[in-house]
Amino acid sequence: MAEIESLTLGAIFYPQFELLDVYGPLEMFGNLGERVSIVTVAEQAGPVASAQGPRTLADYGFDDCPKLDLILLPGGIGTLAELTNDKLLRFLTDRSAEAAVTMSVCTGSALLAKAGLLDGLRATSNKQFFDLSVQQSDKVEWIAAARWVDAGRIATSSGVSAGMDMALAIIERLFSAEDAETICALTEYQRHTDPDSDPFVRYLNQFMPQAQA
Amino acid sequence: MAEIESLTLGAIFYPQFELLDVYGPLEMFGNLGERVSIVTVAEQAGPVASAQGPRTLADYGFDDCPKLDLILLPGGIGTLAELTNDKLLRFLTDRSAEAAVTMSVCTGSALLAKAGLLDGLRATSNKQFFDLSVQQSDKVEWIAAARWVDAGRIATSSGVSAGMDMALAIIERLFSAEDAETICALTEYQRHTDPDSDPFVRYLNQFMPQAQA
Repeated sequence: MAEIESLTLGAIFYPQFELLDVYGPLEMFGNLGERVSIVTVAEQAGPVASAQGPRTLADYGFDDCPKLDLILLPGGIGTLAELTNDKLLRFLTDRSAEAAVTMSVCTGSALLAKAGLLDGLRATSNKQFFDLSVQQSDKVEWIAAARWVDAGRIATSSGVSAGMDMALAIIERLFSAEDAETICALTEYQRHTDPDSDPFVRYLNQFMPQAQA
Repeated sequence: MAEIESLTLGAIFYPQFELLDVYGPLEMFGNLGERVSIVTVAEQAGPVASAQGPRTLADYGFDDCPKLDLILLPGGIGTLAELTNDKLLRFLTDRSAEAAVTMSVCTGSALLAKAGLLDGLRATSNKQFFDLSVQQSDKVEWIAAARWVDAGRIATSSGVSAGMDMALAIIERLFSAEDAETICALTEYQRHTDPDSDPFVRYLNQFMPQAQA
């Protein structure tokens, strides 16, 4: 048998993360079999409660987390508190430097922007909290109308469901188009393949005006 | 303030459940605010590892689980072992009898069929393990070409991603069409509203022929 190179994908959890932000992309990467190994990471190992209630058990804390080849950072209402969590921001800065691709979903891009990781890059974010991301850095070329933006070492997606389309695009880039299509068939997912097509930009900041406060 | 009636949704976990089967629908129901309270349930409270690796912490075991108004049963490769787990099958039978709607995703319908809960009803399942479900009961009207089937007290969906569309249809029925549309906007999800439209039936049993053995 040929030797299979396995990439370690670290999914980052913090209190009140949004469920589908993280589990949508993990479903897609998780169907690559032994080629990707998923680990769950939080500031401290142990239970982390989502915004919707269910708790994930983080395998590793920031201190004992193995080297990450891929990083997945969700958003969620918990992002607001994490914007001042220096331990998280430093962890993201340190680990993103040695990762092949760092991916954020939803307001996760606000955290990447705050950490300075998006400086000089194109990026997008959740349509409902878009201004929150924009406020974190004026050195980012923020793209409102985008399902996701693949800037190479860093990819950012729009809100929640958009993370699945970003994940499949990154799978296509790192592995193959056939892998992405097979995963869609197995998960019965009708993917969106155009990163610039964003039907939800018409709702920009519409439901959550308080995010601009 | 008007009093809000809150429904308790129990998400059932077992080893090697499929991540998106459960977290897709929970994302949708979780955006109904105080109108739905999500609890996580397994045979025993504590960690349950998914097919993709990440572990969920179950709040309750079968013995101390509160009354459930809504039940969500995922599929996944772990279904195969659970088909002979009498404790799970009995729990599903007992709790489904007092729930308003019991929902399964993917091969979860094989478990409902094995428990006899689908007898006399129309139902669907994952396209890749469709025969596995069919083999559990000949008293079910199995529908191969369906995104989901809403049989009233019980709703079954096709594989993985289809659970989100089923969840939104049930939300529309129990709450309102406006709620379902708002949730789609907030989660940036392009839902499929036709339960009979199934683009994945062309792959029926194609990728997983061993499921027919």
